[in-house]
Amino acid sequence: MIFGIVAGSVVSDTKSESLPAAKYLLVQSCDRAGALKDDYLVAIDQLGAGMGEMVLVSQGSSARQTEYTDKKPIDAVIVGIVDLIDEHGKTAYKK
Amino acid sequence: MIFGIVAGSVVSDTKSESLPAAKYLLVQSCDRAGALKDDYLVAIDQLGAGMGEMVLVSQGSSARQTEYTDKKPIDAVIVGIVDLIDEHGKTAYKK
Amino acid sequence: MIFGIVAGSVVSDTKSESLPAAKYLLVQSCDRAGALKDDYLVAIDQLGAGMGEMVLVSQGSSARQTEYTDKKPIDAVIVGIVDLIDEHGKTAYKK
Amino acid sequence: MIFGIVAGSVVSDTKSESLPAAKYLLVQSCDRAGALKDDYLVAIDQLGAGMGEMVLVSQGSSARQTEYTDKKPIDAVIVGIVDLIDEHGKTAYKK
Amino acid sequence: MIFGIVAGSVVSDTKSESLPAAKYLLVQSCDRAGALKDDYLVAIDQLGAGMGEMVLVSQGSSARQTEYTDKKPIDAVIVGIVDLIDEHGKTAYKK
Repeated sequence: MIFGIVAGSVVSDTKSESLPAAKYLLVQSCDRAGALKDDYLVAIDQLGAGMGEMVLVSQGSSARQTEYTDKKPIDAVIVGIVDLIDEHGKTAYKK
Repeated sequence: MIFGIVAGSVVSDTKSESLPAAKYLLVQSCDRAGALKDDYLVAIDQLGAGMGEMVLVSQGSSARQTEYTDKKPIDAVIVGIVDLIDEHGKTAYKK
Repeated sequence: MIFGIVAGSVVSDTKSESLPAAKYLLVQSCDRAGALKDDYLVAIDQLGAGMGEMVLVSQGSSARQTEYTDKKPIDAVIVGIVDLIDEHGKTAYKK
Repeated sequence: MIFGIVAGSVVSDTKSESLPAAKYLLVQSCDRAGALKDDYLVAIDQLGAGMGEMVLVSQGSSARQTEYTDKKPIDAVIVGIVDLIDEHGKTAYKK
Repeated sequence: MIFGIVAGSVVSDTKSESLPAAKYLLVQSCDRAGALKDDYLVAIDQLGAGMGEMVLVSQGSSARQTEYTDKKPIDAVIVGIVDLIDEHGKTAYKK
């Protein structure tokens, strides 16, 4: 899984019938301390992740291994909201 | 899913019998505001995406999870036409 | 799918029994206009793609969705020979 | 598989019900000699990998081929703790 | 498939029970002429590839499509030992 910060949302009225009704969030990649990268993706969220929160994103076929994304053309899903990251005994990130 | 702008179309008369009859669009990668990147791919479209529109592209095995791409050697499909992207409360992109 | 130019062939006498008897082509990545990139891969070809021709390459598990690659340890297959690429109404590439 | 060094751990109280109860480790990519790269990911660990140890990480759908990750939205798992790497007859890394 | 040069071997005593008993080789990426890149991975070998030999590596779920890697958490396997690469009529690499 990779780290990302919830940066916004994406509205798409014309979309594949195969897509689940869900929140499509704009996620900006970040490092383990929350430092932002110039890289964005769109991920499904069912956890209620809020703006600015750090999340864990699972990609590829693994993104389909949830109740909401099973057999859907989804390649990125938020699987966790990060509370704390410990790096070599120090707090790298805290919610 | 990643963002892309529909930039054109691809004609291939000699193609795998496994490929579906569909529109093969030239998609140029872009960021969440539509800024173009020097990176192109070919994606199947069943949504009628028009030239210059921003789309969401699903890749890998997830690209096969639609009625038209099921069990086909397709690794990129357009799953949505983007209407609006909100980034931290501001409109990053509007169709 | 990505674009590539057929650049040659690869001979391997010692190979996995799981591999299909097929042509293993050297494919050089290129952009939508055929401009070459410093990136090579080996892809299975069943279409008779010729030297210098631009092809569409499908990767990952999608590369296994053809009669010849089904359940084989193949992660890249040529799914089409490109005849024409139209970019914003202009011909970006013509065979 | 790629090389990584166990750099810490990740706590996520709000996570997908599909996720297994397991240790979510912060893994920093490294080369075959243990030289660190500026690239982090989160991987499941069931082997008891310790801080600073070099591990092998399997990614993508292959990360789901263990008892603990089967059918879970996990795209990275630690499959081995590295004891020794021999490179052209010399020891590149030793635990 | 990508090109690599067999650079060594990896010993891991503590590994996933799901992993097959096999040789875990250190493979250094290379181009079609054998020029080395600063990129390493670990791949399973069942072909007896020798030190310094150029090999073809299949990645992702395709790496599991062999007798030895079926349903194993393996994302890279050596599927061929390269004897000859012809590039535009010239020998780019010869074993």
